[in-house]
Amino acid sequence: MKNTQAYILQHKNRFLEELLDMLRIPSISADPAYKGDVARTAEFVAEKLRSAGADLVEVFPTAGHPIVYGEKLIDPAKPTVLVYGHYDVQPADPLDLWTSGPFEPVIKKTELHPDGAIYARGSCDDKGQVYMHIKAFEAMLAAAELPCNVKFMIEGEEEVGSVNLGSFLKEHRARLDCDVILISDTSIIDNQTPSITVGLRGLSYVEVEVTAANRDLHSGVYGGAVANPINILSKMIASMQDENNHITIPGFYDNVLVVNSAERKAMNEAPFNEKHYMDDLGIASVHGEAGYTTLERTSIRPTLDVNGIWGGYIGEGAKTVLPSKAFAKISMRLVPNQDPDQITDLFSRHFKAIAPPSVRVEVRAHHGGLPVVTPTDTPEYQAAAKAMEQAFGKAPIPQRGGGSIPIVALFESILGVKSVLMGFGLDSDNIHSPNEHYGLFNFYKGIETIPYFYQYYAELK
Amino acid sequence: MKNTQAYILQHKNRFLEELLDMLRIPSISADPAYKGDVARTAEFVAEKLRSAGADLVEVFPTAGHPIVYGEKLIDPAKPTVLVYGHYDVQPADPLDLWTSGPFEPVIKKTELHPDGAIYARGSCDDKGQVYMHIKAFEAMLAAAELPCNVKFMIEGEEEVGSVNLGSFLKEHRARLDCDVILISDTSIIDNQTPSITVGLRGLSYVEVEVTAANRDLHSGVYGGAVANPINILSKMIASMQDENNHITIPGFYDNVLVVNSAERKAMNEAPFNEKHYMDDLGIASVHGEAGYTTLERTSIRPTLDVNGIWGGYIGEGAKTVLPSKAFAKISMRLVPNQDPDQITDLFSRHFKAIAPPSVRVEVRAHHGGLPVVTPTDTPEYQAAAKAMEQAFGKAPIPQRGGGSIPIVALFESILGVKSVLMGFGLDSDNIHSPNEHYGLFNFYKGIETIPYFYQYYAELK
Repeated sequence: MKNTQAYILQHKNRFLEELLDMLRIPSISADPAYKGDVARTAEFVAEKLRSAGADLVEVFPTAGHPIVYGEKLIDPAKPTVLVYGHYDVQPADPLDLWTSGPFEPVIKKTELHPDGAIYARGSCDDKGQVYMHIKAFEAMLAAAELPCNVKFMIEGEEEVGSVNLGSFLKEHRARLDCDVILISDTSIIDNQTPSITVGLRGLSYVEVEVTAANRDLHSGVYGGAVANPINILSKMIASMQDENNHITIPGFYDNVLVVNSAERKAMNEAPFNEKHYMDDLGIASVHGEAGYTTLERTSIRPTLDVNGIWGGYIGEGAKTVLPSKAFAKISMRLVPNQDPDQITDLFSRHFKAIAPPSVRVEVRAHHGGLPVVTPTDTPEYQAAAKAMEQAFGKAPIPQRGGGSIPIVALFESILGVKSVLMGFGLDSDNIHSPNEHYGLFNFYKGIETIPYFYQYYAELK
Repeated sequence: MKNTQAYILQHKNRFLEELLDMLRIPSISADPAYKGDVARTAEFVAEKLRSAGADLVEVFPTAGHPIVYGEKLIDPAKPTVLVYGHYDVQPADPLDLWTSGPFEPVIKKTELHPDGAIYARGSCDDKGQVYMHIKAFEAMLAAAELPCNVKFMIEGEEEVGSVNLGSFLKEHRARLDCDVILISDTSIIDNQTPSITVGLRGLSYVEVEVTAANRDLHSGVYGGAVANPINILSKMIASMQDENNHITIPGFYDNVLVVNSAERKAMNEAPFNEKHYMDDLGIASVHGEAGYTTLERTSIRPTLDVNGIWGGYIGEGAKTVLPSKAFAKISMRLVPNQDPDQITDLFSRHFKAIAPPSVRVEVRAHHGGLPVVTPTDTPEYQAAAKAMEQAFGKAPIPQRGGGSIPIVALFESILGVKSVLMGFGLDSDNIHSPNEHYGLFNFYKGIETIPYFYQYYAELK
């Protein structure tokens, strides 16, 4: 990969400029107002795949946002790597907390990123990490060192649950035939401590609506005699976690796989400084399920978090209203072997069961995803580990992540193929938050590592 | 009052048209964006007082919104009535629930208002009721039948706690000298059952802020290990009412005056049909403090209602954010002898005491007001009762109201004068809600009743 690495060094400034162009397009998949921008981003990705040298590049429409496909098949005898990623991004609000525009990328130096980091929504999750793959591919082709067949499938609905990807996989099953799926949408422990994600939590995401009276009321005239949907919703949410922060939904833990004490011990030996963690977040205390450490709470244990709540008067000043309705968005991160559909159903039944007769409640399911654990004794894991060791000068640590990439379970069930989660972000990169950023070190380290993965994978497979 | 009543009949259409003009000005005192409209409304009131024949009409600026004053002193030997009211209105949102524009008044017929009702924000609370007084005054003057001295004090901050009225009262104590204060900002039981309000609840209104991490976080990466401020706020709100809907703030009930069983019995004999009440509100069950009836819960018992709550992602779709902050507006209706400042203090100390170490909390006090009970053995109550009996053909029922007019207690402490609460609205008029309205019957019945009050008050005093 000598010529490939030389090519990368020579073109690194252009690679960055191109990524900044992609980051300028606000491809927010959750908000219909950005539909056109999402489509523009798909075209951008297609164009960059074409100019990198991919064949059969096509933007496939779906019932939602499009999926971009491209491939380079060099030899049927060689293994085929399918690169998966997403070009859509999370909503950027609250906008007033960004120190620069979420879609006006700028490079800023930080303590953790002394070489500079790219500040923009999607810089790390996942445009920046997708773009590493396109540029590594371009470099291997230009240097005539591509050792595998490559397929790209870059979608635009990851942040809204990949709702149309399943049917795309089924429809294009033959075209997507491959030996492994390579994904960079996760993080490493720190820039001196590479790691590979070997587990992901699943997700059940619901929206609830509590209705009391048929209209907003005067809190003096009716207050005390008519249910307040906010007070009721608060009570319902509060009751779903006990004093040990165990979730009280009946059956919730039934299928949780117990992690043995040896594995828990190994997990807690990963580099982690709780004081630094708390200082970084500005908190005086961590907060979670009794009997588990922070590293366990964010990987092997399920959660129930309210992601948004609203109801009544939320403007300036005081309004003495007894509101008609209150709403919340609630998500549960799941662990093996919890099933998202079953958990959504358990939640829904429980929420309806605990509602007092003075209100009516509705539960609407958003997207879900299965939890996954990936093995480390596979050629793809070994190839990723060797590639990282070569690029970082240090062997990576296998680590379970707390987030969810529902597509990983889908790939396994529909395509029958395992994924390798070789991401390059940092947990402190503020993905899904204001001031998302991605280190220049991480962007370039990713481009450097990826060709080694292809090299070792071709050797080990 | 024969000529006065004839004048009213002759000019009733013009009276209505003028009121509609006032309702077209969006005088929302809570929202700084409407400051100019609030000022325009004050000028409108001043102009109408002048053209009705008032002397020394003046718009007094305050640190907030202005106070309009005007007077007609006919004879120092006669009693002086001070008319108090407010020209400011509540915010109109949620706008999408209005069937016509909140500031585009229209007349619509309803089951309870077969003659039609004026639909507009402020039509009942309190522009419509203030305007009855200005027109009754005009009629008595035009008919040369005014039997008392009259002073008007119409303020623009009632909906935000009358924050500057106290200092105005102190500064203009001599000018405001009077025998009684007459207020129409309450309701009657129904159009066939007149009533006079003899009690009002007090108010403590606070805004709370709960902060966990210093920024919004990814709910997968951090969820389970870092406090979620919405979950925490829900738990804190939930814990403030027990399973009997008693409020758990230590000391909250210490000064609540126990109402004796005879008074409770009389209170529950007022016309009230709980089935109609529930049908009107579209609820399957009332909801309140154990051991009390609906009529008691809304009059002699204090409350704790969340008037607004917000935090996290509240846009369309799903965002897996672990938010940094959550907020709520919380108000407590108070009864004799609870003190709003003391209750605000108890709330604030309790809220801080129950916050877990994983969050920081802030409590900000909005406005408050003292609860009041007014006696029925006074000339002003008797005058109001006789006036209503003459206009409605039926003696009014004395009734405690659930709302708050903090100014009533202020009048008594600063001016040393009692108020009479002779309002003409209906509880179903949707004040503070979308589709606020005020019956034409009620508007005209008010104009008809007020001159009789002056007549009987001059006789009885």
